[in-house]
Amino acid sequence: MAFDRQQLRIPGPTPVPPQVVSAGARPMVNHRGPVFKSTMMNVLERLKKLFKTQNTILALTGSGTSAMEASVANLINVNDEVLVLVGGTFGDRWAKICSAYQAQVHILEYPWGEGVEPQQVADFLRRNPRITAVFATHNESSTGVLNDLQGIGAALADSDALYIVDAVSSLGGVDVRTDQWGIDVVCTASQKCLMSPPGLAFISLSERAKQRMAQVSSPRFYFDLRIYMEWLAKEEPPFTPNVACFFAMEKALDLIESEGLEQVFARHMILRDMVRAGLRALDLPLLVADKWASPTVTAVKPKFDNIGRFLAELRDTGVELAGGQGRLSGEIFRIGHMGNASPLDMLTTLAAIEARLGSHGQAVAAAEQVWSRAQQEQRGGQGYEGDSV
Amino acid sequence: MAFDRQQLRIPGPTPVPPQVVSAGARPMVNHRGPVFKSTMMNVLERLKKLFKTQNTILALTGSGTSAMEASVANLINVNDEVLVLVGGTFGDRWAKICSAYQAQVHILEYPWGEGVEPQQVADFLRRNPRITAVFATHNESSTGVLNDLQGIGAALADSDALYIVDAVSSLGGVDVRTDQWGIDVVCTASQKCLMSPPGLAFISLSERAKQRMAQVSSPRFYFDLRIYMEWLAKEEPPFTPNVACFFAMEKALDLIESEGLEQVFARHMILRDMVRAGLRALDLPLLVADKWASPTVTAVKPKFDNIGRFLAELRDTGVELAGGQGRLSGEIFRIGHMGNASPLDMLTTLAAIEARLGSHGQAVAAAEQVWSRAQQEQRGGQGYEGDSV
Repeated sequence: MAFDRQQLRIPGPTPVPPQVVSAGARPMVNHRGPVFKSTMMNVLERLKKLFKTQNTILALTGSGTSAMEASVANLINVNDEVLVLVGGTFGDRWAKICSAYQAQVHILEYPWGEGVEPQQVADFLRRNPRITAVFATHNESSTGVLNDLQGIGAALADSDALYIVDAVSSLGGVDVRTDQWGIDVVCTASQKCLMSPPGLAFISLSERAKQRMAQVSSPRFYFDLRIYMEWLAKEEPPFTPNVACFFAMEKALDLIESEGLEQVFARHMILRDMVRAGLRALDLPLLVADKWASPTVTAVKPKFDNIGRFLAELRDTGVELAGGQGRLSGEIFRIGHMGNASPLDMLTTLAAIEARLGSHGQAVAAAEQVWSRAQQEQRGGQGYEGDSV
Repeated sequence: MAFDRQQLRIPGPTPVPPQVVSAGARPMVNHRGPVFKSTMMNVLERLKKLFKTQNTILALTGSGTSAMEASVANLINVNDEVLVLVGGTFGDRWAKICSAYQAQVHILEYPWGEGVEPQQVADFLRRNPRITAVFATHNESSTGVLNDLQGIGAALADSDALYIVDAVSSLGGVDVRTDQWGIDVVCTASQKCLMSPPGLAFISLSERAKQRMAQVSSPRFYFDLRIYMEWLAKEEPPFTPNVACFFAMEKALDLIESEGLEQVFARHMILRDMVRAGLRALDLPLLVADKWASPTVTAVKPKFDNIGRFLAELRDTGVELAGGQGRLSGEIFRIGHMGNASPLDMLTTLAAIEARLGSHGQAVAAAEQVWSRAQQEQRGGQGYEGDSV
């Protein structure tokens, strides 16, 4: 066993800040008592600023997938025609859930490693006016692609279809303008940009989505959002919630608010640009072009074989990265840079990679240059607009 | 705000021992890496001793209700005839979930505050041979009744119906002999007798249940236990799990094993008998007769009005009890005595109650006598067979 301290640089769960761990470790409370009530309402209310919404936000005790399934179970009837945008395993997950609920699933497949073109969505909807819902993935963490939620929203403008988004690996690290972009349902989870342990999922619902809910007869109980709405009116959860994670989330929101949301977004772009510059300096091919590059996770398609061994050796030196998923399994590795992640963490991660590859200093030097330029821009009051995008 | 330290004596979530809190607070890990893999497999394997089963045990990230719904979603088809034994809000929950999945629900209602008579179950099954599953509640925590799982199991012996049990507020504190009593599915959760925070549910599946699963077409994805079985073969969870709660559970199992499971059961019976003796000394009427009295929670139906105010005042003195649920709301209060609960905790709880009622020392004295007798019996090597049962 190597020295037991890991840089956890996977696309979630992400490292939990010690202050957040401590907050989650407070003595257990009655989930129907005044302390929990105030914490739950506080978390749900403050999340609205991160979702940039006036819509209702509900919490489920579950992983991000539980919020995705709740969207489908509450909004899709058997035989409803739905459009799913698929460019990786998380788009594919939407399709699988919709199929499980016996929807008629239309798939608009876009290349794994690129984003969807909003014009294709608009064209599809014009040709298929019976589509009742469009399922999109904001950040496709299996490839490291950030989709254009605003563009997709505009493509839906002339349609009655609900706009349902998986923002599990983006919300809190990348701008999600729920109301401005017309998104009916946004799903996210505690363990990515929100810097808390896994075990809570969040879902926002527009008025239109709430109305649709009443017309859907798919079987559901734990995921029945009508029950959650009723209990929310009493400021209580319907089922025993992940109490510890709510306390953790409360502290994580303190951290995000005190840094400032726009500054958090800028930090994620700097991390992305540092990582991409460092990897390029090592001649490691990036899976995703600048145009679609995710601020929270970067995928590399190296020329060497046996990525599994490479990752195991890196783990022994103290940096934990992720492999590929689905059809990219064995083809890529991925570096998570979301939530509790700093420029110094990126330098550490790149240092471990370059040391393993024998290119001492090269990636770190390139990343430091990006960082220095970003700091100059920020000191100049310009904000950070991104290096390579 | 009063001095912020509570005796949390509700029927879950229960106080988490500091060692368990610490274990859950360890740095986050990759849920697909070697550390988590070994923890998950360790917890699932060791739980078999608590379930007293050779069956497969699966973990869901969710509350106890998530395991209950997974049972229904995986084992019940539309229009299946099922029998639900209802004597409180948790029996009622089985009925609601079965109804949500459009089963033909037969309800055998037994009085709230009593247990079900196994002979009635046998009679019902003889008259209704098309029943495909019987749903029972081991410990009905809304009333404080412990049902006779062995007797119900015997009543099912001549039937092909699956035997499905909610053991959420009993398993780990009360004997559950899954295999010996012929129970196909047992559901439980982390936050009751298992002394961990809420957010993990566990479910055991017999071979018969696994075979039934393949014939069921109810929609499910997050709760699709076939997916969990496939991933378990790879020693991985299908979705991002409640990592922190797995680490907590590992330590909680250490504590249970080092005390000894049979000794844990005896402790819960002593706690029950102490609480009941103390409440009787205060002339507070017990909802449940000795025959059905739960070792994990005790319900009181006091003669005074305004139970809500009584509970709020107790909370201010540092003891948190629970009110009633469903039709017993406003009629009873409940004292949880499960998991991380000792005889001294019961004396503290009774002291707060008697002090509030002006009967100084009476409940504590009666409870101490039960405790002393129990210690004598245990020192005599007899084990503890229960005082009032």
